[in-house]
Amino acid sequence: MAAGRTVGKAAGQDWRHYEPLDLPPILTHALDAFYEQGFHGTAVRDIARRVGVTVPALYYYYENKEAILVALLETATNDVASRAFAAAEEGGDRPEVRFANVIEAVVLHMTHRVRLAALDSELRYLQPANRKHYAATRKKLENLLTGIITDGVRAKVFTVAEPAETSRALLGMCQAVATWFRDDGPLRPEKLAARYVAIALMTVGAQPGSRRARPRPGGTR
Amino acid sequence: MAAGRTVGKAAGQDWRHYEPLDLPPILTHALDAFYEQGFHGTAVRDIARRVGVTVPALYYYYENKEAILVALLETATNDVASRAFAAAEEGGDRPEVRFANVIEAVVLHMTHRVRLAALDSELRYLQPANRKHYAATRKKLENLLTGIITDGVRAKVFTVAEPAETSRALLGMCQAVATWFRDDGPLRPEKLAARYVAIALMTVGAQPGSRRARPRPGGTR
Repeated sequence: MAAGRTVGKAAGQDWRHYEPLDLPPILTHALDAFYEQGFHGTAVRDIARRVGVTVPALYYYYENKEAILVALLETATNDVASRAFAAAEEGGDRPEVRFANVIEAVVLHMTHRVRLAALDSELRYLQPANRKHYAATRKKLENLLTGIITDGVRAKVFTVAEPAETSRALLGMCQAVATWFRDDGPLRPEKLAARYVAIALMTVGAQPGSRRARPRPGGTR
Repeated sequence: MAAGRTVGKAAGQDWRHYEPLDLPPILTHALDAFYEQGFHGTAVRDIARRVGVTVPALYYYYENKEAILVALLETATNDVASRAFAAAEEGGDRPEVRFANVIEAVVLHMTHRVRLAALDSELRYLQPANRKHYAATRKKLENLLTGIITDGVRAKVFTVAEPAETSRALLGMCQAVATWFRDDGPLRPEKLAARYVAIALMTVGAQPGSRRARPRPGGTR
Protein backbone atom coordinates (compact mmCIF):
# COMPACT_ATOMS: atom_id res chain seq x y z
CA MET A 1 0.00 0.00 0.00
CA ALA A 2 1.34 3.44 -0.85
CA ALA A 3 1.35 5.65 2.22
CA GLY A 4 -0.92 8.23 0.64
CA ARG A 5 -3.65 5.68 0.18
CA THR A 6 -4.34 5.41 3.88
CA VAL A 7 -4.26 9.04 4.88
CA GLY A 8 -6.39 10.82 2.30
CA LYS A 9 -10.02 11.41 3.14
CA ALA A 10 -12.31 13.08 0.67
CA ALA A 11 -15.35 14.84 2.09
CA GLY A 12 -14.34 13.65 5.56
CA GLN A 13 -14.94 10.02 4.66
CA ASP A 14 -12.47 7.18 4.98
CA TRP A 15 -13.77 5.09 2.11
CA ARG A 16 -11.95 1.96 3.29
CA HIS A 17 -13.44 1.98 6.76
CA TYR A 18 -16.61 0.04 7.52
CA GLU A 19 -18.54 0.02 10.76
CA PRO A 20 -21.29 -2.55 11.28
CA LEU A 21 -24.27 -1.43 9.20
CA ASP A 22 -26.44 0.92 11.25
CA LEU A 23 -29.94 1.22 9.83
CA PRO A 24 -33.30 2.06 11.42
CA PRO A 25 -35.00 -1.12 12.76
CA ILE A 26 -37.53 -1.35 9.91
CA LEU A 27 -34.80 -1.27 7.27
CA THR A 28 -32.58 -3.68 9.21
CA HIS A 29 -35.31 -6.30 9.45
CA ALA A 30 -36.55 -5.71 5.91
CA LEU A 31 -33.00 -6.22 4.62
CA ASP A 32 -32.71 -9.54 6.46
CA ALA A 33 -36.09 -10.66 5.11
CA PHE A 34 -35.30 -9.63 1.52
CA TYR A 35 -31.89 -11.34 1.72
CA GLU A 36 -33.40 -14.59 2.98
CA GLN A 37 -36.68 -14.72 1.06
CA GLY A 38 -36.31 -12.19 -1.74
CA PHE A 39 -38.32 -9.00 -2.17
CA HIS A 40 -41.31 -10.74 -3.76
CA GLY A 41 -41.17 -13.55 -1.19
CA THR A 42 -41.45 -11.13 1.72
CA ALA A 43 -44.85 -9.86 2.90
CA VAL A 44 -45.19 -6.53 4.70
CA ARG A 45 -46.58 -8.43 7.68
CA ASP A 46 -43.32 -10.51 7.79
CA ILE A 47 -41.34 -7.30 8.17
CA ALA A 48 -43.75 -5.90 10.78
CA ARG A 49 -43.48 -9.13 12.79
CA ARG A 50 -39.67 -9.06 12.66
CA VAL A 51 -39.63 -5.42 13.79
CA GLY A 52 -42.26 -6.08 16.45
CA VAL A 53 -44.75 -3.47 15.24
CA THR A 54 -48.19 -3.63 13.65
CA VAL A 55 -48.64 -3.44 9.89
CA PRO A 56 -50.39 -0.01 10.15
CA ALA A 57 -47.46 1.30 12.24
CA LEU A 58 -45.10 0.19 9.50
CA TYR A 59 -47.22 1.90 6.85
CA TYR A 60 -46.87 5.10 8.87
CA TYR A 61 -43.19 5.15 7.88
CA TYR A 62 -43.30 3.57 4.44
CA GLU A 63 -46.06 3.81 1.87
CA ASN A 64 -45.58 0.22 0.73
CA LYS A 65 -43.05 -2.59 0.45
CA GLU A 66 -41.46 -1.06 -2.63
CA ALA A 67 -40.76 2.15 -0.69
CA ILE A 68 -38.74 0.08 1.79
CA LEU A 69 -36.79 -1.54 -1.04
CA VAL A 70 -36.17 1.89 -2.56
CA ALA A 71 -34.85 3.20 0.78
CA LEU A 72 -32.46 0.24 1.01
CA LEU A 73 -31.33 0.54 -2.61
CA GLU A 74 -30.70 4.27 -2.09
CA THR A 75 -28.62 3.50 0.98
CA ALA A 76 -26.63 0.95 -1.01
CA THR A 77 -26.12 3.13 -4.07
CA ASN A 78 -25.25 6.25 -2.12
CA ASP A 79 -22.76 4.27 -0.04
CA VAL A 80 -20.92 2.75 -3.00
CA ALA A 81 -21.01 5.96 -5.03
CA SER A 82 -19.76 8.26 -2.24
CA ARG A 83 -16.96 5.84 -1.35
CA ALA A 84 -15.96 5.41 -5.00
CA PHE A 85 -15.81 9.18 -5.54
CA ALA A 86 -13.76 9.61 -2.35
CA ALA A 87 -11.46 6.80 -3.51
CA ALA A 88 -10.97 8.46 -6.90
CA GLU A 89 -10.33 11.83 -5.26
CA GLU A 90 -7.63 10.29 -3.10
CA GLY A 91 -5.83 9.13 -6.24
CA GLY A 92 -5.18 12.74 -7.17
CA ASP A 93 -4.15 13.15 -10.80
CA ARG A 94 -2.79 9.62 -11.30
CA PRO A 95 -5.33 7.63 -13.35
CA GLU A 96 -3.84 4.26 -12.34
CA VAL A 97 -4.21 5.06 -8.63
CA ARG A 98 -7.67 6.56 -9.11
CA PHE A 99 -8.71 3.46 -11.06
CA ALA A 100 -7.28 0.99 -8.53
CA ASN A 101 -8.90 2.89 -5.66
CA VAL A 102 -12.33 2.90 -7.31
CA ILE A 103 -12.22 -0.85 -8.00
CA GLU A 104 -11.06 -1.45 -4.44
CA ALA A 105 -13.85 0.76 -3.05
CA VAL A 106 -16.53 -0.99 -5.12
CA VAL A 107 -15.39 -4.50 -4.11
CA LEU A 108 -15.13 -3.47 -0.44
CA HIS A 109 -18.74 -2.31 -0.68
CA MET A 110 -19.86 -5.55 -2.40
CA THR A 111 -18.30 -7.59 0.42
CA HIS A 112 -18.66 -5.49 3.60
CA ARG A 113 -22.19 -4.59 2.53
CA VAL A 114 -23.06 -7.82 0.72
CA ARG A 115 -26.68 -7.90 1.92
CA LEU A 116 -27.32 -4.41 0.61
CA ALA A 117 -25.36 -5.06 -2.58
CA ALA A 118 -27.25 -8.29 -3.29
CA LEU A 119 -30.48 -6.28 -3.50
CA ASP A 120 -29.27 -5.17 -6.90
CA SER A 121 -30.96 -8.20 -8.46
CA GLU A 122 -34.35 -6.94 -7.20
CA LEU A 123 -33.90 -3.69 -9.10
CA ARG A 124 -35.69 -4.94 -12.19
CA TYR A 125 -38.94 -5.32 -10.30
CA LEU A 126 -39.08 -1.63 -9.30
CA GLN A 127 -41.57 0.78 -10.81
CA PRO A 128 -39.96 2.65 -13.76
CA ALA A 129 -39.68 5.98 -11.87
CA ASN A 130 -37.84 4.38 -8.96
CA ARG A 131 -35.64 2.33 -11.24
CA LYS A 132 -34.75 5.47 -13.19
CA HIS A 133 -33.55 7.30 -10.10
CA TYR A 134 -31.41 4.37 -9.01
CA ALA A 135 -30.05 3.86 -12.52
CA ALA A 136 -28.96 7.52 -12.61
CA THR A 137 -26.71 7.13 -9.55
CA ARG A 138 -25.23 3.95 -10.99
CA LYS A 139 -24.58 5.77 -14.25
CA LYS A 140 -22.58 8.40 -12.36
CA LEU A 141 -20.33 5.67 -10.99
CA GLU A 142 -19.96 4.13 -14.45
CA ASN A 143 -19.12 7.55 -15.90
CA LEU A 144 -16.55 8.15 -13.15
CA LEU A 145 -14.77 4.92 -14.06
CA THR A 146 -15.06 5.54 -17.80
CA GLY A 147 -13.53 9.00 -17.33
CA ILE A 148 -10.63 7.59 -15.35
CA ILE A 149 -10.00 4.92 -18.00
CA THR A 150 -10.08 7.57 -20.73
CA ASP A 151 -7.61 9.71 -18.75
CA GLY A 152 -5.37 6.67 -18.36
CA VAL A 153 -5.42 5.97 -22.08
CA ARG A 154 -4.57 9.59 -22.78
CA ALA A 155 -1.72 9.44 -20.22
CA LYS A 156 -0.54 6.18 -21.88
CA VAL A 157 -0.73 4.20 -18.63
CA PHE A 158 -3.73 2.19 -19.91
CA THR A 159 -4.46 0.46 -23.21
CA VAL A 160 -8.21 0.21 -23.71
CA ALA A 161 -10.09 0.09 -26.99
CA GLU A 162 -13.57 0.72 -25.57
CA PRO A 163 -13.47 2.67 -22.27
CA ALA A 164 -17.26 2.79 -21.75
CA GLU A 165 -17.81 -0.92 -22.42
CA THR A 166 -14.79 -1.83 -20.30
CA SER A 167 -16.09 0.30 -17.44
CA ARG A 168 -19.50 -1.36 -17.58
CA ALA A 169 -17.91 -4.82 -17.80
CA LEU A 170 -15.65 -4.18 -14.80
CA LEU A 171 -18.47 -2.84 -12.66
CA GLY A 172 -20.50 -5.92 -13.64
CA MET A 173 -17.57 -8.08 -12.57
CA CYS A 174 -17.49 -6.34 -9.19
CA GLN A 175 -21.28 -6.48 -8.79
CA ALA A 176 -21.20 -10.24 -9.41
CA VAL A 177 -19.18 -10.62 -6.20
CA ALA A 178 -22.36 -9.84 -4.23
CA THR A 179 -24.05 -12.91 -5.71
CA TRP A 180 -21.63 -15.41 -4.14
CA PHE A 181 -19.71 -13.66 -1.35
CA ARG A 182 -20.66 -14.85 2.14
CA ASP A 183 -20.11 -12.45 5.01
CA ASP A 184 -19.53 -15.45 7.28
CA GLY A 185 -17.05 -17.11 4.86
CA PRO A 186 -13.25 -17.36 5.18
CA LEU A 187 -12.37 -14.86 2.44
CA ARG A 188 -11.72 -11.37 3.77
CA PRO A 189 -13.06 -8.33 1.89
CA GLU A 190 -9.63 -6.66 1.81
CA LYS A 191 -7.96 -9.71 0.27
CA LEU A 192 -10.63 -10.12 -2.39
CA ALA A 193 -10.57 -6.40 -3.18
CA ALA A 194 -6.78 -6.56 -3.71
CA ARG A 195 -7.21 -9.48 -6.13
CA TYR A 196 -9.90 -7.65 -8.09
CA VAL A 197 -7.71 -4.56 -8.31
CA ALA A 198 -4.96 -6.71 -9.84
CA ILE A 199 -7.42 -8.33 -12.27
CA ALA A 200 -8.94 -4.98 -13.26
CA LEU A 201 -5.51 -3.39 -13.79
CA MET A 202 -4.70 -6.19 -16.24
CA THR A 203 -7.99 -5.50 -18.02
CA VAL A 204 -7.00 -1.90 -18.71
CA GLY A 205 -3.53 -2.93 -19.79
CA ALA A 206 -1.69 -1.62 -16.72
CA GLN A 207 0.71 -3.77 -14.79
CA PRO A 208 -0.79 -4.59 -11.40
CA GLY A 209 2.24 -3.12 -9.62
CA SER A 210 2.39 0.04 -11.70
CA ARG A 211 0.68 2.32 -9.23
CA ARG A 212 3.51 1.64 -6.82
CA ALA A 213 6.23 1.44 -9.43
CA ARG A 214 6.27 5.14 -10.19
CA PRO A 215 6.89 6.94 -6.91
CA ARG A 216 6.62 10.68 -7.19
CA PRO A 217 9.06 13.03 -5.61
CA GLY A 218 7.67 14.70 -2.55
CA GLY A 219 4.61 12.61 -1.89
CA THR A 220 1.95 10.30 -3.10
CA ARG A 221 -0.59 12.49 -4.85
CA MET B 1 -13.12 -14.19 -37.83
CA ALA B 2 -10.70 -16.95 -38.67
CA ALA B 3 -12.23 -19.43 -41.09
CA GLY B 4 -11.81 -22.36 -38.71
CA ARG B 5 -14.02 -20.73 -36.14
CA THR B 6 -17.14 -21.20 -38.19
CA VAL B 7 -16.70 -24.78 -39.35
CA GLY B 8 -15.83 -26.74 -36.21
CA LYS B 9 -18.68 -28.46 -34.41
CA ALA B 10 -18.07 -30.43 -31.27
CA ALA B 11 -20.61 -33.11 -30.44
CA GLY B 12 -22.63 -32.08 -33.47
CA GLN B 13 -23.38 -28.67 -32.03
CA ASP B 14 -22.66 -25.32 -33.61
CA TRP B 15 -22.18 -23.35 -30.42
CA ARG B 16 -22.57 -19.99 -32.17
CA HIS B 17 -25.92 -20.80 -33.71
CA TYR B 18 -29.14 -19.89 -31.90
CA GLU B 19 -32.66 -20.77 -32.95
CA PRO B 20 -35.61 -19.14 -31.21
CA LEU B 21 -35.93 -20.80 -27.81
CA ASP B 22 -38.14 -23.87 -28.11
CA LEU B 23 -39.48 -24.99 -24.73
CA PRO B 24 -42.61 -26.89 -23.71
CA PRO B 25 -45.54 -24.47 -23.18
CA ILE B 26 -45.44 -24.63 -19.39
CA LEU B 27 -41.76 -23.66 -19.32
CA THR B 28 -42.24 -20.96 -21.96
CA HIS B 29 -44.98 -19.25 -20.00
CA ALA B 30 -43.28 -19.76 -16.65
CA LEU B 31 -40.13 -18.15 -18.06
CA ASP B 32 -42.11 -15.11 -19.22
CA ALA B 33 -43.79 -14.83 -15.82
CA PHE B 34 -40.54 -15.18 -13.85
CA TYR B 35 -38.82 -12.64 -16.10
CA GLU B 36 -41.62 -10.10 -15.65
CA GLN B 37 -42.59 -10.67 -12.02
CA GLY B 38 -39.75 -12.67 -10.50
CA PHE B 39 -39.95 -16.22 -9.18
CA HIS B 40 -41.40 -15.21 -5.81
CA GLY B 41 -43.80 -12.78 -7.47
CA THR B 42 -45.30 -15.48 -9.67
CA ALA B 43 -48.05 -17.76 -8.38
CA VAL B 44 -48.57 -21.23 -9.84
CA ARG B 45 -52.06 -20.12 -10.88
CA ASP B 46 -50.49 -17.26 -12.91
CA ILE B 47 -48.50 -19.82 -14.88
CA ALA B 48 -51.53 -22.11 -15.30
CA ARG B 49 -53.59 -19.18 -16.59
CA ARG B 50 -50.88 -18.18 -19.09
CA VAL B 51 -50.61 -21.77 -20.33
CA GLY B 52 -54.40 -22.16 -20.42
CA VAL B 53 -54.56 -25.20 -18.15
CA THR B 54 -55.89 -25.83 -14.64
CA VAL B 55 -53.61 -25.72 -11.63
CA PRO B 56 -54.03 -29.50 -11.01
CA ALA B 57 -53.07 -30.17 -14.65
CA LEU B 58 -49.91 -28.16 -14.12
CA TYR B 59 -49.10 -30.08 -10.93
CA TYR B 60 -49.34 -33.27 -12.99
CA TYR B 61 -46.15 -32.18 -14.77
CA TYR B 62 -44.33 -30.32 -12.02
CA GLU B 63 -44.41 -31.03 -8.30
CA ASN B 64 -44.30 -27.34 -7.42
CA LYS B 65 -43.17 -23.94 -8.61
CA GLU B 66 -39.57 -24.61 -7.61
CA ALA B 67 -39.52 -27.69 -9.85
CA ILE B 68 -40.40 -25.43 -12.79
CA LEU B 69 -37.58 -23.03 -11.88
CA VAL B 70 -35.19 -25.96 -11.57
CA ALA B 71 -36.18 -27.21 -15.04
CA LEU B 72 -35.53 -23.75 -16.48
CA LEU B 73 -32.22 -23.34 -14.65
CA GLU B 74 -31.11 -26.75 -15.86
CA THR B 75 -31.99 -25.80 -19.42
CA ALA B 76 -29.98 -22.59 -19.04
CA THR B 77 -26.96 -24.19 -17.39
CA ASN B 78 -26.82 -27.15 -19.75
CA ASP B 79 -27.07 -24.80 -22.72
CA VAL B 80 -24.25 -22.51 -21.64
CA ALA B 81 -22.05 -25.38 -20.45
CA SER B 82 -22.44 -27.52 -23.58
CA ARG B 83 -21.80 -24.54 -25.84
CA ALA B 84 -18.78 -23.46 -23.81
CA PHE B 85 -17.27 -26.95 -23.93
CA ALA B 86 -17.90 -27.17 -27.69
CA ALA B 87 -16.33 -23.72 -28.09
CA ALA B 88 -13.25 -24.78 -26.13
CA GLU B 89 -12.98 -28.01 -28.13
CA GLU B 90 -13.02 -26.05 -31.36
CA GLY B 91 -9.99 -24.10 -30.15
CA GLY B 92 -7.91 -27.28 -30.30
CA ASP B 93 -4.66 -26.98 -28.36
CA ARG B 94 -4.37 -23.20 -28.55
CA PRO B 95 -5.25 -21.75 -25.14
CA GLU B 96 -5.83 -18.24 -26.51
CA VAL B 97 -8.38 -19.51 -29.05
CA ARG B 98 -10.03 -21.83 -26.54
CA PHE B 99 -10.26 -18.92 -24.09
CA ALA B 100 -11.67 -16.46 -26.61
CA ASN B 101 -14.19 -19.05 -27.83
CA VAL B 102 -15.42 -19.81 -24.30
CA ILE B 103 -15.92 -16.12 -23.47
CA GLU B 104 -17.70 -15.63 -26.80
CA ALA B 105 -19.94 -18.66 -26.14
CA VAL B 106 -20.86 -17.48 -22.65
CA VAL B 107 -21.72 -13.94 -23.77
CA LEU B 108 -23.74 -15.27 -26.73
CA HIS B 109 -25.73 -17.34 -24.23
CA MET B 110 -26.21 -14.35 -21.88
CA THR B 111 -27.63 -12.30 -24.75
CA HIS B 112 -29.43 -14.74 -27.07
CA ARG B 113 -30.89 -16.47 -24.00
CA VAL B 114 -31.15 -13.42 -21.74
CA ARG B 115 -34.46 -14.47 -20.16
CA LEU B 116 -33.05 -17.84 -19.15
CA ALA B 117 -29.72 -16.32 -18.09
CA ALA B 118 -31.44 -13.68 -15.94
CA LEU B 119 -32.94 -16.47 -13.82
CA ASP B 120 -29.51 -16.82 -12.28
CA SER B 121 -30.44 -14.23 -9.66
CA GLU B 122 -33.25 -16.50 -8.44
CA LEU B 123 -30.77 -19.28 -7.72
CA ARG B 124 -30.24 -18.26 -4.11
CA TYR B 125 -33.86 -18.97 -3.25
CA LEU B 126 -33.61 -22.64 -4.29
CA GLN B 127 -33.62 -25.47 -1.78
CA PRO B 128 -30.02 -26.46 -0.92
CA ALA B 129 -30.18 -29.79 -2.85
CA ASN B 130 -31.33 -28.06 -6.03
CA ARG B 131 -28.85 -25.26 -5.62
CA LYS B 132 -26.05 -27.77 -5.14
CA HIS B 133 -26.82 -29.53 -8.42
CA TYR B 134 -26.91 -26.28 -10.33
CA ALA B 135 -23.75 -25.02 -8.64
CA ALA B 136 -21.93 -28.19 -9.72
CA THR B 137 -22.57 -27.54 -13.42
CA ARG B 138 -21.46 -23.93 -13.02
CA LYS B 139 -18.32 -25.13 -11.28
CA LYS B 140 -17.50 -27.31 -14.32
CA LEU B 141 -17.65 -24.24 -16.52
CA GLU B 142 -15.49 -22.28 -14.08
CA ASN B 143 -12.99 -25.14 -13.97
CA LEU B 144 -12.92 -25.32 -17.77
CA LEU B 145 -11.98 -21.65 -17.97
CA THR B 146 -9.48 -21.90 -15.10
CA GLY B 147 -7.79 -24.85 -16.86
CA ILE B 148 -7.53 -22.92 -20.11
CA ILE B 149 -6.06 -19.91 -18.31
CA THR B 150 -3.54 -22.14 -16.55
CA ASP B 151 -2.59 -23.73 -19.89
CA GLY B 152 -2.17 -20.28 -21.37
CA VAL B 153 0.10 -19.18 -18.54
CA ARG B 154 2.17 -22.35 -19.01
CA ALA B 155 2.37 -21.70 -22.78
CA LYS B 156 3.38 -18.09 -22.02
CA VAL B 157 0.51 -16.61 -24.04
CA PHE B 158 -1.24 -15.37 -20.85
CA THR B 159 0.02 -13.55 -17.77
CA VAL B 160 -2.28 -14.28 -14.84
CA ALA B 161 -1.38 -14.31 -11.15
CA GLU B 162 -4.55 -16.04 -9.92
CA PRO B 163 -6.17 -18.23 -12.61
CA ALA B 164 -9.08 -19.45 -10.45
CA GLU B 165 -10.03 -15.99 -9.17
CA THR B 166 -9.64 -14.52 -12.66
CA SER B 167 -11.88 -17.23 -14.11
CA ARG B 168 -14.59 -16.56 -11.52
CA ALA B 169 -14.29 -12.81 -12.04
CA LEU B 170 -14.59 -13.12 -15.83
CA LEU B 171 -17.61 -15.42 -15.63
CA GLY B 172 -19.18 -12.93 -13.21
CA MET B 173 -18.49 -10.18 -15.74
CA CYS B 174 -20.25 -12.20 -18.44
CA GLN B 175 -23.15 -13.15 -16.16
CA ALA B 176 -23.71 -9.47 -15.35
CA VAL B 177 -24.61 -8.90 -19.01
CA ALA B 178 -27.89 -10.74 -18.38
CA THR B 179 -28.89 -8.11 -15.82
CA TRP B 180 -28.98 -5.24 -18.31
CA PHE B 181 -29.07 -6.70 -21.84
CA ARG B 182 -32.40 -6.18 -23.60
CA ASP B 183 -33.31 -8.65 -26.32
CA ASP B 184 -35.27 -5.86 -28.03
CA GLY B 185 -32.39 -3.36 -27.77
CA PRO B 186 -30.10 -2.09 -30.54
CA LEU B 187 -26.95 -3.94 -29.42
CA ARG B 188 -26.43 -7.25 -31.22
CA PRO B 189 -25.24 -10.31 -29.28
CA GLU B 190 -22.38 -10.95 -31.72
CA LYS B 191 -21.05 -7.41 -31.39
CA LEU B 192 -21.19 -7.46 -27.61
CA ALA B 193 -19.58 -10.90 -27.48
CA ALA B 194 -16.69 -9.65 -29.64
CA ARG B 195 -16.15 -6.72 -27.28
CA TYR B 196 -16.16 -8.99 -24.22
CA VAL B 197 -13.65 -11.31 -25.89
CA ALA B 198 -11.33 -8.33 -26.39
CA ILE B 199 -11.82 -7.18 -22.78
CA ALA B 200 -11.26 -10.69 -21.41
CA LEU B 201 -8.12 -11.22 -23.50
CA MET B 202 -6.69 -8.04 -21.96
CA THR B 203 -7.55 -9.40 -18.51
CA VAL B 204 -5.40 -12.49 -19.06
CA GLY B 205 -2.58 -10.44 -20.54
CA ALA B 206 -3.05 -11.53 -24.16
CA GLN B 207 -3.30 -9.06 -26.95
CA PRO B 208 -6.87 -9.02 -28.32
CA GLY B 209 -5.60 -9.84 -31.83
CA SER B 210 -3.24 -12.60 -30.77
CA ARG B 211 -5.46 -15.53 -31.59
CA ARG B 212 -5.35 -14.49 -35.22
CA ALA B 213 -1.75 -13.35 -35.16
CA ARG B 214 -0.25 -16.83 -35.07
CA PRO B 215 -1.61 -18.72 -38.07
CA ARG B 216 -0.72 -22.36 -38.11
CA PRO B 217 0.51 -24.15 -41.16
CA GLY B 218 -2.09 -26.44 -42.64
CA GLY B 219 -5.25 -24.88 -41.29
CA THR B 220 -7.17 -23.61 -38.34
CA ARG B 221 -8.74 -26.78 -36.93
